[in-house]
Amino acid sequence: MNDSKLISSPVSPSCPVPLSRQPTITLAHGGGGKWTRHLIDSVFYPAFENPDLETHHDSALLKLGSDRLALTTDSFVVDPILFPGGNIGTLAVNGTVNDLAMSGARPLFLTAAFILEEGLSIETLQTVVQSMRQAVDASGVKIVTGDTKVVPKGKGDQLFINTTGVGRVEHDLKIHPASIRSGDAVLVSGDIGRHGIAVMAARENLGFENVIESDCAGLWKSVHALLETGIEVHCLRDCTRGGLATALIELSHSAGVAIELDESAIPIQEEIQGACELLGFDPLYVANEGCFVAIVPPNDRDRALEILQEHKQEATVRIAGQVYESASPRVRLKTKIGTSRLLELLSGEQLPRIC
Amino acid sequence: MNDSKLISSPVSPSCPVPLSRQPTITLAHGGGGKWTRHLIDSVFYPAFENPDLETHHDSALLKLGSDRLALTTDSFVVDPILFPGGNIGTLAVNGTVNDLAMSGARPLFLTAAFILEEGLSIETLQTVVQSMRQAVDASGVKIVTGDTKVVPKGKGDQLFINTTGVGRVEHDLKIHPASIRSGDAVLVSGDIGRHGIAVMAARENLGFENVIESDCAGLWKSVHALLETGIEVHCLRDCTRGGLATALIELSHSAGVAIELDESAIPIQEEIQGACELLGFDPLYVANEGCFVAIVPPNDRDRALEILQEHKQEATVRIAGQVYESASPRVRLKTKIGTSRLLELLSGEQLPRIC
Repeated sequence: MNDSKLISSPVSPSCPVPLSRQPTITLAHGGGGKWTRHLIDSVFYPAFENPDLETHHDSALLKLGSDRLALTTDSFVVDPILFPGGNIGTLAVNGTVNDLAMSGARPLFLTAAFILEEGLSIETLQTVVQSMRQAVDASGVKIVTGDTKVVPKGKGDQLFINTTGVGRVEHDLKIHPASIRSGDAVLVSGDIGRHGIAVMAARENLGFENVIESDCAGLWKSVHALLETGIEVHCLRDCTRGGLATALIELSHSAGVAIELDESAIPIQEEIQGACELLGFDPLYVANEGCFVAIVPPNDRDRALEILQEHKQEATVRIAGQVYESASPRVRLKTKIGTSRLLELLSGEQLPRIC
Repeated sequence: MNDSKLISSPVSPSCPVPLSRQPTITLAHGGGGKWTRHLIDSVFYPAFENPDLETHHDSALLKLGSDRLALTTDSFVVDPILFPGGNIGTLAVNGTVNDLAMSGARPLFLTAAFILEEGLSIETLQTVVQSMRQAVDASGVKIVTGDTKVVPKGKGDQLFINTTGVGRVEHDLKIHPASIRSGDAVLVSGDIGRHGIAVMAARENLGFENVIESDCAGLWKSVHALLETGIEVHCLRDCTRGGLATALIELSHSAGVAIELDESAIPIQEEIQGACELLGFDPLYVANEGCFVAIVPPNDRDRALEILQEHKQEATVRIAGQVYESASPRVRLKTKIGTSRLLELLSGEQLPRIC
């Protein structure tokens, strides 16, 4: 969940109201957009600054003896904690596994810390914990230690989970925005928007004709397949909070490049597009957990597509864009009707508490 | 904070009401006593079981290449978040640094994940974050990555922080309950009870004549001094949730030994003893953050005491007990008035939300 990390970003945080005149935390500070960035840049980053502090990527990369380790952390506050296709536990495991995978690191160990609200049903907790076990097994990772705290009724929201992951980088590639080059292909795995809409529909009790299930999933196996086949992966990014658009905007700014995106090639299913139109959401900004962007050099493009299509059995993978040299980093969308639209970071949050 | 970890413990969890008939989470599940243990043993441990899952100690110990790593996690939900002598940030850094130190591991890297409640003052957040920086600098550790989430007003309690720590074991000792031997000396650093009473006094606005300040502190430097001098440390344990009594009871059960504790040698200051009597608390069960137990062989006892006394400038260190062989693991307290009292795990929680 890169968008919420301690990123010192070159994206200029042109907040609607200066943070210095905004004395308290607002929901927009958690949205993964401009305000989150401003909070990180003005409060967290200056206080924690050190040479190992992760800046533009999903995990901190650390040298330890002869090993290159990746370390990442995420707290999950999704509402509701159970939703069609998954629950907060599935999300907590896959979210952290995916942050490691996006750094090209093999996920090895997870920690799991629970903040339980008084009154939470133990049966629900058991459901969540069992889903976590299934998710760790599916990704070949182990939970090795944990923590449990209880807060009084009204001082939490049923269950918050933090997972922190340790992974190992087992290749010589530098999978990082700095490796992105003009001409690179942008592959997008989908279906985009499904997870966010599934959670929102469950929260608001929206009675869609067909229940929309989250596609929340671990991505390490797909990434591993790319690496194993010798694809020269330049960068990876999962499209979590802030969605595909935010992920690409962040990459374009970190790498100092322009990205042209072809709307007709973005893997958005009709039922998700329909639900988004009904609710007034732009699917490009809806959070996912299990969709990602892979940026590869042009001559690896078709092979990478083939490998990902083999490994992501249910979802679609498409070549959805291309990287261009540009003096002004930006993401431009070629729409289905032939016009062109500049994608920008949102100020607030379209869909809060999706992860 | 070993007492809340995923411990599969030999202590029999004789809950007052069977958990199977207790369908929801209660505050007692977070108390670090019998109910916490029962929750861990019945819900978390069976689901997460694997050979690397930490069982009886403060951190998971993991082999990675030629390195032995320690990994530990803790969420902090202390109420109030600011208290005399520290705040939730100081606690979050020192708590995790100390869990690594208690495993004999040099703390290297921390992650920091924040759950902010809408309406939290940004000035307060800045105070907390700056304290974290001071605490990491004091222990020679670095925060390398983080996460920020915001929950709506009434769905959190100002600020929860998770810290996860990675450390490296740089010696050949096995610092573990299994290394405890009959005849070993039990050293206790104090002052015992101060942190818990400081937090409680701040929460309840108790107007003691002198403000009681928390002694929350990092312990790695003391542990490092012991290791560097070649003391054959058998076991270390910080006296956090559940206090000194719970720490020793857990150790006695994990190691299968009896511990005799001399009340007159326990470093409890008069003002803390007085406050405890006033409030009806037993200082032996009050949570600390910065007090610990070191168990060393008899011929290292006096040198260990000397080293710890040198390094813990303000607090007292005492030889407060001894380990005996016993068929029934237990902790017996020789009281100041010459009687003897068996210490037992509490069912509920004396002082909730101290860490």
